[in-house]
Order: sequence, then C-alpha cells, then structure tokens
Amino acid sequence: MKVDGKHFRSIWLEPDGWSVGAIDQRRLPHEFVVARLTNVGEAAAAIRAMLVRGAPLIGATAAYGMALAMREDASDAALARAYEVLIATRPTAINLKWALEEMRTVLRPLAPSSRGDAAYARADDIAEEDVAINQGIARHGLSLIEAIAARKPGEPVNVLTHCNAGWLATVDWGTATAPIYLAHDAGIAVHVWVDETRPRNQGASLTAWELGHHGVPHTVIPDNTGGHLMQHGQVDLVIVGTDRVAANGDVCNKIGTYLKALAAHDNGVPFHVALPSPTIDFNVADGVTQIPIEQRSADEVTHMTGRTADGRIETVRIVPDGSPVANYGFDVTPARLVTGLITERGVLKAERAALAAAFPERIAAAAE
Amino acid sequence: MKVDGKHFRSIWLEPDGWSVGAIDQRRLPHEFVVARLTNVGEAAAAIRAMLVRGAPLIGATAAYGMALAMREDASDAALARAYEVLIATRPTAINLKWALEEMRTVLRPLAPSSRGDAAYARADDIAEEDVAINQGIARHGLSLIEAIAARKPGEPVNVLTHCNAGWLATVDWGTATAPIYLAHDAGIAVHVWVDETRPRNQGASLTAWELGHHGVPHTVIPDNTGGHLMQHGQVDLVIVGTDRVAANGDVCNKIGTYLKALAAHDNGVPFHVALPSPTIDFNVADGVTQIPIEQRSADEVTHMTGRTADGRIETVRIVPDGSPVANYGFDVTPARLVTGLITERGVLKAERAALAAAFPERIAAAAE
Repeated sequence: MKVDGKHFRSIWLEPDGWSVGAIDQRRLPHEFVVARLTNVGEAAAAIRAMLVRGAPLIGATAAYGMALAMREDASDAALARAYEVLIATRPTAINLKWALEEMRTVLRPLAPSSRGDAAYARADDIAEEDVAINQGIARHGLSLIEAIAARKPGEPVNVLTHCNAGWLATVDWGTATAPIYLAHDAGIAVHVWVDETRPRNQGASLTAWELGHHGVPHTVIPDNTGGHLMQHGQVDLVIVGTDRVAANGDVCNKIGTYLKALAAHDNGVPFHVALPSPTIDFNVADGVTQIPIEQRSADEVTHMTGRTADGRIETVRIVPDGSPVANYGFDVTPARLVTGLITERGVLKAERAALAAAFPERIAAAAE
Repeated sequence: MKVDGKHFRSIWLEPDGWSVGAIDQRRLPHEFVVARLTNVGEAAAAIRAMLVRGAPLIGATAAYGMALAMREDASDAALARAYEVLIATRPTAINLKWALEEMRTVLRPLAPSSRGDAAYARADDIAEEDVAINQGIARHGLSLIEAIAARKPGEPVNVLTHCNAGWLATVDWGTATAPIYLAHDAGIAVHVWVDETRPRNQGASLTAWELGHHGVPHTVIPDNTGGHLMQHGQVDLVIVGTDRVAANGDVCNKIGTYLKALAAHDNGVPFHVALPSPTIDFNVADGVTQIPIEQRSADEVTHMTGRTADGRIETVRIVPDGSPVANYGFDVTPARLVTGLITERGVLKAERAALAAAFPERIAAAAE
C-alpha cells in the first residue's frame, strides 16, 4: 500500500538482488525507517526484536532469512543452523514454522550450488502467495462493503476494526484491511473506526498510521467506544483479523475482539473476520475451551511509549507502583457471534461444515 | 478510607476550623499531595482544574467554597458572586448545582452575621450526607458479596469494576467501591479486577491507587480484558458507578461500561450499578435515546501522562500526527442488561416501577 504516495510492501528484495528491505515497525508511528537485512542473523534479530511482526510477515521474513543464509553458505550444516536460529525467534508463530519447513523441504534435496537461487525464488513465492491470498480476501470482502454502500448513497461506509490486521502485518494489503483498501481504491467512500487496542496500541500506532498514509479516512477511538458507536448507528460493519480460527468457527484474536462481537450482535451490526486459510486450525474442535491464551509481560500494561512535545521518544509508567496487572494477549469470540469469515475462497459461515467444504484439503491434512 | 494505614477523606475541614484540605487528585497515582483551600477562588480553581473530581466530591467542595466565601464577606452580593464563580467551574456536574442551590437556600434568609457558621454547618452536613449514602450502598451491596462468598468458601470473590467510582470520587467510601471496602474490612476475601479505563485511565490511576493503599487485593487490566475473564469464570460480580440513571433504569456511565454489561449478560455474571439516589433522573424516560453523550478533548486520546524511569512526569503522544480521534465520555447501558441498582435504600430492579417505589419523593419532585 502507499506511504505518502509511494507504493511499499512491508518486506522486499532490494535492487541489489540479494539484500532484504523491511520497514522498522518498532519506530512507527513516530518515524518511518527502513532496515536492510544482509544475513540470517539480522533476519532473526528483526523477527525477535519485532522490527517485523504479524504472522504472515514473520513467515516471509524467515523465508528471506533462509535465502540470506544460503547465499553465504549453502551446506547442509548451514541450512540446519539457519533453521534453528530462525525457529527460535518467536516460539508460537505458526507461519514462522510453516515458512521454515517449506524452505527446508525445497532446499534439502538440492545440491548446495543450486540452493541460493532456489531459496530466493521460494521466498519470493511465499511473499507473493501472501499477497495473492490477501487480494482474494479483498475481493470477497469488497462485495460486503459494496452492498452497504448501495444502501446509503452519498454516505461513507463505516467499518470498525480492532488491532492491526493491516498491510504492515502481512506482505501487502493486510487481511482485515484488504477489503477496505480495495473499496477505497475503487472510489467507494469508506471511513474506519480504529480501536487503539490496548495494551500495545497496534490500532493507534500501526493501523491508523497505514490508513492515514494510504489516504483512507479514519478515526482513532479508545477500545471502550465501539459499543456506543454501534448503539447509535455509526458502525455499518466490523472487520477484524484473527490469529487462529478453530474448526467450529470460534475466532481467536487480539484481546477485546469478543467485546466488539457482543456489541455488534446486540445492535445487528455484521461482524466479519478476515482470514487467510492457513489461520484455520482443524485440529482445534472448540475455540473457546481449547485455545490456550498467552499471558504477556506486565510492562505492556504498566508502561506506555510515545513522543514528547520536543520530539523525544519516552516510556512512562501509568499504573501505581505495587499494583499487580494481568495481560491476556487474546480472547476467543464464539462462532455464534460471527456473521461471516472472509477467506480467499469466499465469505463463509463460521461453522465446521462451511470451513470443511471450502478447504477440503486442509481438513484432510488435519485428519492425518 | 486508608492511605498507608491512616484514615483519609477526599476533603475535610482542617484543624484550624476554617480552611479546607483536599487530596490533589491530579498528582495521583505518582504523588500524594494535600492541598489547602483558603478562599472561594481556590475552591473554584480546585474544581475547575480537577484537583478534585467526582460528582459528590465536587458538590462538597462547592459547599465548602461557599463557606470560605461567607467567612470573608457574608453580604448578599458576596453570596451571589460566590455562587456564580462556583457554578461556572464545571458546567454539567449535577451535584455542583444541587449543592450550591442548597447552600444559597440555607444562607439567603439569614442575617449576614449568621451566614459564616451556617455555611460551614451545612457544608459539613453535605459531606456527611454523602458518606451516609455511600455507607447505605455499602451495606446493601455487601449482601451480594456475602452471598457469593458463601458459595465459594476459601476463594476470593472476584469483582470487576470500571473507571473510578471510589472514595476519591466521593467524600468517603465511594459508590461502586463501598461494598468492596465494607466486605474487605469485614474479613471477606475480595479481589478486584480494575479496568484501566481509557482514555483518562481513572481505573489504573485512581481506583488501583485507592484499593492498593487501603490494602484491597486487585489487578489492573486493559479495558479489553473483561470479556475473556468472564468467559472463563474469573469474575463473580461486576459493580460500576454511574453518572445518571434514567427513569427506565438505563445507566449512563463512563464509556465502555456497556461492553462489560454485554459480556456479563453473555456469561451469566451479575452486573450491578451502585448509585446514590441523587443520580436518578426521573425527567429522562429513556436513557439510551435521550441522554446526550459529551464529546471530550482529543488530547485525552492522543496523549498519555506518566512517570519516567528517573521520576519525571512526562506527557507523550501515542497516536500518529494527523490521525483524527473521537472521545465520547460516556455510554448508556440498557436496563435489560442491569441485574440490580445498589442504592442507599436497597438493591432495586433497573425499572421505573422499582425506582419509583423506592424513591417516591423524587418522582413527585420530577413531576412538578
């Protein structure tokens, strides 16, 4: 998507044909800084330090990390080492494991002399596949936005989103944002309510940043606000991303998503979840009871980082000394509250039968 | 309630018998500073600058402000001037207007020579009446907590609250916190989930502070967390305060309250609202459609104030430059989601008939 008129992806091959460029997302929204990754150690550090984040982007970064490793040393030992270094960066990211196994499967059978080129080719493909999936989500989600736009000519379609399921979390387009960007680029008036998404504020710092730089009208709101807006007809549609969808259609996503789903249900607002199909986990029968919820560092709740009036980046404590905090990273929205799942193969009902019919190869693989 | 073992109210008459002490709430939670108010201008400034906040405390401060005015000049002109100065401090606070009219009604018929003592006496009474109301709420709410404690011996009763309806917002005890303090002081194990309450963070900065200093076990959570906790049986009871309750039992409270009420309803968790009866507005028939919702300054959303590692108080920007924000101060929870209204006269159903039966004199006054 665009940053001040120029098209960017979140990760790319530099014109030199081998080094990898990426946006340093730790500096957003206050500074736009591009990092250059030149070896597997730098790629691993970028993932570990969250210079890149978002499951699809982590996968693509890991793939390019393997390519950088093969460029320097394409031996079996180097391949194994690169895999180990990269898999250790973020223990729970499913796309990370998938991308690394994919790279290893492609590279292992090859002679070392062929591995460098093959690694770059497969890494490029992994990035392009992510973009293609998100474009599929964009097309299917667009029809939902078009239908609402047709009912209220001359008025913008108001979409509420939570956290950052934007292009910064993927290679391009994003998941929840993909239909929004496509609608905006097609000339449909869209306005996005952006939940700030405490405690890490990915909504305020990333989603608002990317929407603003692409030119999509939006308004940042505290996470507390969505219910009031829906109660007063100011939200036409909710679209969120997801970290994992269970076989029964239960949706695990950033903490607070469930509250917005409840408000949408209470006010008759459609609640959609955008998901690339790799996010479906057919091995989890029931999301609410079976998906473990990660508890994260207290610092994310007790401290806040931002820019002072004179331009310094400072971190301040906002919770009294001695008050314990809890920091659950995700919650699970029951399928009964989900209007539809926007996948690259269409908008599906949030239920096992619909998911199985659309992705038969995935359910077959899960049964193995 | 207690601050590190010593009993405090939020406002008090100093031992000199005329000047007024108050906790400077702008400095919390990072510093505990007591202010001394010595004239009506200082009292007005304290309200305007939010050195004191919370409707009942604002009312008491205004009453003492009138007393300070009468001490210096008890003429009719000074009485009128003091009223004007104080009423202009916070345009929408209902208790402010009530307290000032009460003071004027008492003072006007008196000879100037009697007004000073009468003003202090009535201001003291207004403060004591607030404490008495909150103690009534405490007693009635205690029975709810005791009933839950009886069902889970050996385990703490988990109460979730939103914003600060604590003793700092009143003269003492608070409203939502009153039953919690009484239960804790009675030896019942209580644990409070404290919503941080963006954007002004009154939960993290005030409720957590006061619970911690009184010794009540508590955990600060992002506002996004309550749904997940309720879904997993970690909340036994929600108690919140309110700014205004409509005749039909709809509850206006800090933005985000409605989302917690939805989550409580979805998970069978009792959702109670603690209210001093002056909060009931029989002139509003339907809260959801008729209560106007104040929109507040964007700064509250875009900026955050806290303490740096080296002890400085800094304000940082957390939203990208150029991203618009919306800041709705309150939302309205429909009566159908409210399990009960904890008043000084008992726990009532959130419906017109129950409110009218408990407060017949209020409904009669509203009909005039």
